Amino acid sequence: MTMQLLKERIMKDGRVKDGNILKVDSFLNHQLDTLLIDKIGEEFYNRFKDVEVNKILTIETSGIPLAYATARYFKCNVVFAKKKMSKNITGEVYTAKVMSYTHGINYDVIVAKEYIKPDDKILVIDDVLANGEALTGLMKMITDAGATLVGCGVAIEKGFQPGGDSMRRKGIRLESLVIVDGLNSSTKTIVFRD
Amino acid sequence: MTMQLLKERIMKDGRVKDGNILKVDSFLNHQLDTLLIDKIGEEFYNRFKDVEVNKILTIETSGIPLAYATARYFKCNVVFAKKKMSKNITGEVYTAKVMSYTHGINYDVIVAKEYIKPDDKILVIDDVLANGEALTGLMKMITDAGATLVGCGVAIEKGFQPGGDSMRRKGIRLESLVIVDGLNSSTKTIVFRD
Repeated sequence: MTMQLLKERIMKDGRVKDGNILKVDSFLNHQLDTLLIDKIGEEFYNRFKDVEVNKILTIETSGIPLAYATARYFKCNVVFAKKKMSKNITGEVYTAKVMSYTHGINYDVIVAKEYIKPDDKILVIDDVLANGEALTGLMKMITDAGATLVGCGVAIEKGFQPGGDSMRRKGIRLESLVIVDGLNSSTKTIVFRD
Repeated sequence: MTMQLLKERIMKDGRVKDGNILKVDSFLNHQLDTLLIDKIGEEFYNRFKDVEVNKILTIETSGIPLAYATARYFKCNVVFAKKKMSKNITGEVYTAKVMSYTHGINYDVIVAKEYIKPDDKILVIDDVLANGEALTGLMKMITDAGATLVGCGVAIEKGFQPGGDSMRRKGIRLESLVIVDGLNSSTKTIVFRD
């Protein structure tokens, strides 16, 4: 089911660029519309409030405000996976390799083992789902930790890329607030799924 | 003035590591204590509510949840500077070079010009202030845009590094919620300024 407020905002301010890129950086991932992000958090809460969630997992960078906004409603903590080893990460970590099509690079994502425990019931949140590389990496780390994946919530799913359908086929509970089924960079058209 | 709640949390969960590193990643920059971050946002609001703020500027990654939490109280948008050029950033950008002592690298930070306007009254928020490299980069971009810097808020200032004093000498309004004046990695001692 489409989140109408987000769909309307994408229609108003989303920009279609060559290479199947939908720019939403005026409100979602460079400038943040605080009120919209709060509403997105509330929407994820409403979609998952039937299940127990005690932790929200996301990946830096753009997932963080959405994860935090959602965690405010669930009254739980957020853990965000980091994209490379830094001096401040010590000790044991869960890792996954992720290919970013946006940035055209492979990178490692890590979460310190102490922040995912076997009894955690984890909701994964991210801004955009395309090929599903980032979510797959996060889910791998949840499996490695022996924790429970409750489901995944994404603000925008690119329905013409395989990530979302692949997750549904695996039986993963996926809530996409808006699904975009096509982008045409010459006509600047965005096709939404309803 | 110290934010007592944050100071107590640092005393309880902060960990002192070699190289003047204070690890706060169990609540501030890897796992996020959602309620604490909400309180930090409220505290920044209380310290700056006497002035007009219409935008909050921060830098990825760890500044984002604090900036968003603060922006909820100010009912304004957040802009976060990005650490490298990505395919999704097009058009004109403000740039600054920043040296990260934590990661031991130099990097470029960018903000799309359309997101800082001359009439913006900007509060800069970040998690940790040490040498002040990140804040200096953000302030340079505000100057380049002809916008107004209202002040800077940081959760933790390392008072034994020069960033904070340098900013105060320049007359910048700086609010540090907690100032740490020393770290001893052999005794695991944290010295707070009060």
